[in-house]
Order: sequence, then C-alpha cells, then structure tokens
Amino acid sequence: MTRLILLLIIVIGLGTHTIAQKNTNDEDALFIRKIYDQALTDGQAYPWLEHLTTSIGGRLAGSPQAAAAVEYTKQMLDTLGLDSVWLQPCMVPHWVRGEAEQVRIVNSDQVGTVELNALALGNSVGSGKYGVTAEVVEVKSLDELDKLGRTVEGKIVFFNRPMNPKQIRTFNAYGGAVDQRGSGPSRAGRYGAVAALVRSMTTKHDDVPHTGGTFYEPGDPQIPAVAISTNDANLLSRLVEKEPVRVFVRTMCQMYEKKQSYNVVGEIRGSEKPEEIILVGGHLDSWDVGQGAHDDGAGCVQSMDVMYHIKQLGYQPKRTIRCVLFMNEENGLAGGRAYADISNANNEFHMAAIESDAGGFSPRGFRADADKTVFNKKFKQVTQWLPLLEPYGLRFDKGGSGADIGPLKSQKGLLFGLAPDSQRYFDYHHTHEDLIGAVNQRELELGAAAMTSLVYLLDKYGVE
Amino acid sequence: MTRLILLLIIVIGLGTHTIAQKNTNDEDALFIRKIYDQALTDGQAYPWLEHLTTSIGGRLAGSPQAAAAVEYTKQMLDTLGLDSVWLQPCMVPHWVRGEAEQVRIVNSDQVGTVELNALALGNSVGSGKYGVTAEVVEVKSLDELDKLGRTVEGKIVFFNRPMNPKQIRTFNAYGGAVDQRGSGPSRAGRYGAVAALVRSMTTKHDDVPHTGGTFYEPGDPQIPAVAISTNDANLLSRLVEKEPVRVFVRTMCQMYEKKQSYNVVGEIRGSEKPEEIILVGGHLDSWDVGQGAHDDGAGCVQSMDVMYHIKQLGYQPKRTIRCVLFMNEENGLAGGRAYADISNANNEFHMAAIESDAGGFSPRGFRADADKTVFNKKFKQVTQWLPLLEPYGLRFDKGGSGADIGPLKSQKGLLFGLAPDSQRYFDYHHTHEDLIGAVNQRELELGAAAMTSLVYLLDKYGVE
Repeated sequence: MTRLILLLIIVIGLGTHTIAQKNTNDEDALFIRKIYDQALTDGQAYPWLEHLTTSIGGRLAGSPQAAAAVEYTKQMLDTLGLDSVWLQPCMVPHWVRGEAEQVRIVNSDQVGTVELNALALGNSVGSGKYGVTAEVVEVKSLDELDKLGRTVEGKIVFFNRPMNPKQIRTFNAYGGAVDQRGSGPSRAGRYGAVAALVRSMTTKHDDVPHTGGTFYEPGDPQIPAVAISTNDANLLSRLVEKEPVRVFVRTMCQMYEKKQSYNVVGEIRGSEKPEEIILVGGHLDSWDVGQGAHDDGAGCVQSMDVMYHIKQLGYQPKRTIRCVLFMNEENGLAGGRAYADISNANNEFHMAAIESDAGGFSPRGFRADADKTVFNKKFKQVTQWLPLLEPYGLRFDKGGSGADIGPLKSQKGLLFGLAPDSQRYFDYHHTHEDLIGAVNQRELELGAAAMTSLVYLLDKYGVE
Repeated sequence: MTRLILLLIIVIGLGTHTIAQKNTNDEDALFIRKIYDQALTDGQAYPWLEHLTTSIGGRLAGSPQAAAAVEYTKQMLDTLGLDSVWLQPCMVPHWVRGEAEQVRIVNSDQVGTVELNALALGNSVGSGKYGVTAEVVEVKSLDELDKLGRTVEGKIVFFNRPMNPKQIRTFNAYGGAVDQRGSGPSRAGRYGAVAALVRSMTTKHDDVPHTGGTFYEPGDPQIPAVAISTNDANLLSRLVEKEPVRVFVRTMCQMYEKKQSYNVVGEIRGSEKPEEIILVGGHLDSWDVGQGAHDDGAGCVQSMDVMYHIKQLGYQPKRTIRCVLFMNEENGLAGGRAYADISNANNEFHMAAIESDAGGFSPRGFRADADKTVFNKKFKQVTQWLPLLEPYGLRFDKGGSGADIGPLKSQKGLLFGLAPDSQRYFDYHHTHEDLIGAVNQRELELGAAAMTSLVYLLDKYGVE
C-alpha cells in the first residue's frame, strides 16, 4: 500500500502545484498577449530592415556596407533609451569578390560552350586574370575524393551531392551537404586539383548560384572555388557521365589584410540580478550579393525589436538583457569569438542567449542547446512554459542554437535558436535573391514577439 | 482505498495500452515517413498548379477558364488509375467584371482628383456607363450604418473597419471584418445609398485592391460595390474627416444567366468498407483577377496529389477515398451544395472530409469540426494520432473546416481544414498577385503529405 499512498501524494501534489501555477500563468499569458499586441502593431523591425537592405545592402565583413551597418544599428539602438550601447572591436577577414565570375563548359561535344551561373565561394582565392581550364571530375562526397586521391591532379573537382529533399527541416539537409562547400575545395587542392566547383546549397532546381564560406586548411594549396546553380550542376553531371568535359573558371576575388570591425551591443541592466545576462542577437554581416535580408538582417532587427518592445511595455527586467549584433558570422565568426573571449575575461555569465539566424519567416519555436552536463535539467525548466507559448504556434526542440552564440556554451547557460519555418530559407540563402521583398512583415514581427516572450519568461523565472 | 486501487488499475491499464499502441505506431510512423518521402520527391501538385495558373489562369465560375480547369483536372485524374472519375453537374452564377473599374476622389480641396486602386466586388451590379458620383460617408460597422439609417440616402457608404492585426491567425481577423464586404453593400442599398466602397480585406498597407463576393439580400436595391486598397482607404478616411469628399464610381460588371458547370470527382473504392467515404478537396474556381494560385489552385492540386501518392505507394484503402474539386466556392457555393444534395440523396456517409482552402503555405496542422452532438467523441479519437503527426510540425485545433465541405456536416462525419501558416495568405487573397510565384513548391508538397497522412490514419483506424 505504501506505493499507492505515495502515488496518491504525488497526484495530489501535482494538483496543488497546478492551481498555484495557474495564477502565475494567467498573469504571464496576459503579458505575453501584450507583447504580441505591441509587436504586431508597433514593430520597428521591418522599417529598420528596409534601411539595412535597400539603403545599405549586402554587407560582407570588412566592406564599407558593413561599416555603415555598424553605424546605423548603433544609432538606432541609441534612440531606444537603453542603459548603454557600445561597439566591441574585432578584427575581420577582408575578402573581395572583384569582377564577375566567368565559368563555362568549353566546347563540349554535346552542348558546345555553355556559360554556367556561378559565384565564387567566400574566402576563395582568385584564378588569376587568365583563368584556369581543366577536365571535370565529379564526386559526391569528401570520402569519394579521398578515394580518388592524386588522380584528380590537374583537374577540376566538382562536388555534386544534393541537399536531401526528404528532410522536413531544410537545415538538416543543408547540414548534410555543406561539408562539400566548407572543406571540399581545400581537400581538392591537397590532391592537386586546380579548381573546385560546388553544387549550390538548395533543394530548389533553378539557375541561382549560392555563395557561402569555404575554408582552406593550413598547408593545403589554395585553389579557386565557385558554386554553380543546381540546374547547371545537373547539366554538368549529365555531360561528364558521357564524355570528358572541360570547364573554364575565372574569378578575380582576393583576400586582403584583416580589418578592424565591431559587434554592436546594447543592454538594459537588470534591477535585481544584473550579473545574469540574457542575450538576444543576430549577425550584422551578410554576403556581398543580395541584401542579406533573411540572412541575417532579419535576426538583427528582431533582436533590436526585443529591446524596443521591452522599453515600450515599460517592463523592468530583473536580469540584464543584452542585444548583440555580431560581425563576420559568414566567413570567420570573428565577432562571436571576440564576444565570448571578452565575456569570459570579464567573468560574465550568460544565463541564456537567443540567436535569430534562420530567416525572418513565421516562427515555429526555439531550438535549445547547452553544455551536456546541464542541458537536461535546464531544458526541463523551460519546457514548463510551453502552455504559454503554444497558443502562438511555438514549441521547444533540442538542437543547435546559433553560430555566434555557440562560443558561449562553456558558460553553461541555455542557448536558443529562434526556429522559423525553414521551407523557403534555402531558396534565398547566400544569393542575389535574399532581398527585402522575400521578407513578410508580420512573420518578422511574430519572430520578434516570440523572442521577447521567451526573454520575459527567462527574466522572470530564471533558469537554474 | 477503493479509489487508490482504481487509480492503480487505471495507471497499469494505461501502461499496457501504451505498449500495445507502440507497435502499431511504429508501423504507422514508417508509413507516414514513406508518404513524406514520396511527396517531397515525386509530388505532381506543383507542375499541375503551374498549368492551372499560367496556362489557364483566373477561373471564375461560368468563365471559359473555369470550363478549361474542369477539363484539365478531369484529364489529370484520368491518368492516375483511380476506380472512377466523373463530372458532377451544378448550375453556377455567371458574373463578368467587364471593363476596368474607375474609382476616383473628385476635386477634393485637399488633394484634387485622385484615382483609387479598386476592384468591383463579385456579384456586384455595374454602375452604368456614366458611373455615379456622390459624397462619401464612412462607417466602421453594419451597426454604425444601421444607426445612420436613411441619412446615407444618395450617398456612397464607405466600410472601413480594418482587419485586426493583433489576431495571430489571420483568418480570424478576416472573419472579424468580412461582414462589411459580404453584407455591407446590400444593407447600404436598403438605406438608399447609391454605391458602396469597402476597405480591402488584408492587414497589409499597400495599393492592391482585394475583390471577393458580395451578396444582395432579396428586396434590397442593388447598388455598385467596389473594394479599394488599404492605402487608398486610409487616404479617403483622412480626407472625409476634414471635409465632404465626393467619389466617382464606374463599374461595368454584370450578372448573366446561370451556367452549367461541374464539380470534378475521382475516387478509389474501399476494399472493406466502401460505404465509408473519406473526402479530400479544394475548389476549382477562383477569382478572375490573378491566377487563383493559393486560392484555391493549391487545394485542388494537393487533393489530386493525395490520390496520386496513395496509388504510387500501392496503398489499398479499406474505405472509399474521394477527391472532389468543387465549383463556385467564391461567389455562390453551388458546387458544395450540389455535392451534398446528391450525396444525401444517395444516402452516402462521409466518415471524414478534408478541405484545403487556406493557401499552399507550410502546413501547421488541421482544424476539425463536426456536428456538435458527435464532435468531442470523434475529435478525441483523432488527437490520439498526434504523436505521429507532430514530428511533421502538425497539430489539431478545433475550428471551421472549409466552405465546400460544410454542407456535409449533417452526415455527422468529421470535417477537417488543412491549416497552413496563415501569415502571408491575405497579402495575395483575391488579388492580381495570387500568382504561382507566391507558391513555394516544398510547402505545397508538405501540405499534400499532411493530407495524405491524415487520410491514411482515417482509413486505417476509422472514426466511430
């Protein structure tokens, strides 16, 4: 009977707990409703994003546009009545695309000479003004390249494993293919290849090339690397199956000396526990093509809007709320690393950090991550808030948060990534088409509201 | 102690049930995964929609385009190897927009003469070739109009209550404003007004007018009715606050004699319980402006894709699966009514019906509805399937299903509406901008997969 009595006690205990919980929850539900009302009628994210995209444009680290974005967002944060706003220095790579890329199939028996839709990969070396021409060898993976080894010497390695369309969450498909772009060219250079082509990272079949960072490992010969559109990748693949195909690649991109740049930071100091920091952020840099509207203008203006909404609602946080617009996520992560280094040097503790870097689409929840020694305990606490967030279509999932806040993991706080609907993201990602017109104002505002609501709950209840 | 023992029995019972349930669920989880794989790699919805939108275009009931859409979709269903495909006759209204609308502010002291972005409302009478000019009276509701009564005689009534942007689900905002469009003009005519202007049904601030059905009550004088864009509505509202404003309205639309049209129906006959029907459907007609891509080409091609996927997967349903493409949802519901009348006359039983008529956006679940005497019991059964659908971002909510399947409610089956993300829908709804370019292929395919998965579960387990 002991067990039965214990069971009864637990059941009764749960009941009491539920009643006590309810009153708090009613108050929280009302406040979250206020946050959404505020966000959907007075959001500043969209007009800020309009400026960032149409007046400033693509803003790769080290570019004049990136400097303008630093100035603009600092000025905007200065208008919000925060306790402090500052620039945090970091040294960033300075890569410049230069003249438009020329990539073409040369004199194929099947199709003659065909221009391919291409973009040099970020950080890539240029080909020199006369370009390189060589036979193409297609591979589907780094392993396949390793097996070919030095047989690719003097050739162009073509990485052509598609993103898996069966993945429901497109970021998983991206994660399953992007090693080709990030590591493929360096590895191909190691085996003596003279250039690398990489299939664009998208499930869409179209003519739009997607750039993105590639990273040479120390010691590997640095060879020119370009992305080609998925349609062109399919064409090239069909051709190389039947005959040797030669491709001409000319890129004039170049890596210059590192430049001084900045993270933009603004904070409201906590009234009771200022030493516990809740961070919201996105990255201010973007690729040079397009306007960096979804990636990651959206995340920056949403993070700024969190601060705006908190002030407009007259909410006085107990903990410190800090908005950080990171520099150089795309091709180096210098801002994220500098931020964590300074934070650690100052013995700061980020109780939680929320990054928005998955597009300005309709929010569907948050992905949560933390050091594995504390994750389960902390995650359990926040999932108790689910009934307050579910009415807004939000849920919590386990998974990666955001690249810029990743280095904060060692502080053992909870890291979140805003998780918008992912279906359209890779239609625009790193392309000429990542424009303000692809961002829906309400969806953007709902993301800011979701982030503000989570900040409110984190601030009010804390996470032990 | 009796209670405690009872409690124990319940707890143990739940445990056993869970284990028994698990094996079935594994099999179901695998099959649903297969459905998604099929839908994301071999969906036909998007190419079908391309034809329906770009080759056929806007297809208002009674138009040549609507007739072409009937032919085309019947031919496509004929290719799928269904047990039968047929046309089901219905008589539809035949309304024609005619020459482009002219609506302008005439000689205002503040802004002079200004053209307004306008579309005649569907079913509206025309103004005659010389148009009408009269002073504008703004109201925010039908109640306000009732209070003004005959004082609006000889004037133009301007219905200007915006959709409430604070609603998270935009359809709720639409539902809270659309009485102005549906009933406003008839009511204004009753009080002697000479025309009606209606603020476009969208939360967006732009220059795009949104048409939609208006319905005259018997006995009310029929006056011309037009929608104006939200920007123009805001302008007009600011002007009438300060001075009398006269507006000129010229519309050449006309209602002709009813025409013969059709619902398009295809079915797979059930192997065990053919008398229990599971319907999937959308409406084949659209407004004449734009291409009717989201409204409701998307729902039609998704419903057709459900049939295609069932056949491709070699699934033999126990119950009858029927795809119905309804005619004339937009301005009469003749197809939905005819379908229910024939079904009732044949003593059919629709165990379930799923309509997709909320756009081809990323699916977030289903709304479920039924006769109130059976709803709770039936809804509880389907919510047990939630663990199978949640991995795909789906949930069940209570709420309206779809206009076309609404008349089936008396058969006391469960009615579902596919519930896609609603944030963008009213950017395009009933406008020139409801084009294929606004539809994302993956989102469309995921909707078809969600519908197919629900059909599978309904077919396998039934609903008592």
